Amino acid sequence: MSKPQRIIEAARKRFRYYGIQKTTMQEIAQDAGIAVGTLYLYFSNKDELVVACAEEFVEHHRAEVEAILALRCPADEKLRKYVAARFRQARDIRSNSRHAVEIARAVLRVKPDRLEEEGLLMWDAISKILKLGVEQRVFTIANPADDAKIFLYSIAFFFPNALNEPRVPPTEEELLSVVNWFIGAWKGQRAAAKKRSREL
Amino acid sequence: MSKPQRIIEAARKRFRYYGIQKTTMQEIAQDAGIAVGTLYLYFSNKDELVVACAEEFVEHHRAEVEAILALRCPADEKLRKYVAARFRQARDIRSNSRHAVEIARAVLRVKPDRLEEEGLLMWDAISKILKLGVEQRVFTIANPADDAKIFLYSIAFFFPNALNEPRVPPTEEELLSVVNWFIGAWKGQRAAAKKRSREL
Repeated sequence: MSKPQRIIEAARKRFRYYGIQKTTMQEIAQDAGIAVGTLYLYFSNKDELVVACAEEFVEHHRAEVEAILALRCPADEKLRKYVAARFRQARDIRSNSRHAVEIARAVLRVKPDRLEEEGLLMWDAISKILKLGVEQRVFTIANPADDAKIFLYSIAFFFPNALNEPRVPPTEEELLSVVNWFIGAWKGQRAAAKKRSREL
Repeated sequence: MSKPQRIIEAARKRFRYYGIQKTTMQEIAQDAGIAVGTLYLYFSNKDELVVACAEEFVEHHRAEVEAILALRCPADEKLRKYVAARFRQARDIRSNSRHAVEIARAVLRVKPDRLEEEGLLMWDAISKILKLGVEQRVFTIANPADDAKIFLYSIAFFFPNALNEPRVPPTEEELLSVVNWFIGAWKGQRAAAKKRSREL
């Protein structure tokens, strides 16, 4: 790992376990195995480290999209994999730290367009998967970007952020029921059902 | 209006303009034009009035469902009307009072199953509209109750409660884009598109 990567990793762990307020630049430098003077060469305050951690999530997301697009499998399988991976990551971020709310607030303060950026990234990823599905002749979709947007709204309920965690957390099973319904519609199972009902 | 109805109406207005904490039983009695002793014959404290106000919303919702089901129009139009009416009511509740959060908290404290009840009512209403659509031969749906559930998840993002109002409030236009997509799928426009693409 490069020095900045080691620093970001150390900051991420400290923020997660102790929260941002209770973490000092000194502790982060210590965990990263560098002098605090060196740390300041890369990041001049905790806010910059919060931004760096958030950007790392975006990078991880981008890499995940690339990996899923590169898989040799049908688009419907890619879509399920992608949505489930996003769901698990969002759930882990919300629940794996007692400081999730503090961190979410800090991220939105230093990077106010964070949620929009995440939404656009998901929209782009889903559009690409749907287009691939059309090329693979798995899906019948007139306008993949439009349908990707509808799909994104339709699964948005399953992606609350730490600031508005609902009383009953959404489940992966319910999410997949929605994903599978859309896949059925795009695969034209509804068309088949209509054909059947006409023949009766 | 009956005496209890007048009381509930007076309480609702006071809660909305001044919040629950700042409202007294004396003021509610005054606004309803009755003696406070009479008020206590019907409601022994503010919590009971909060429950009564919440129940009135449920009654209003039920009446709305009946009215929309009774309209002489196709099921897709009923669905649009119903969802738009729900959206507007939810938005008004969230934004028409500076005390929306206090009221939402109080309602969930005295009636913890309020949101589930609302969800079940919507599920039932949508199931009925979809079934009607199948009878009218407007929709092709194998299992209306299943599809109603998927549809409900898909529009849930547009119905945040006052406790988790998002930074960017959802719009009716976006909601209707989702509703229209589903209507298209249920009407089998996707089937037509598939047929076209096969003929090319």
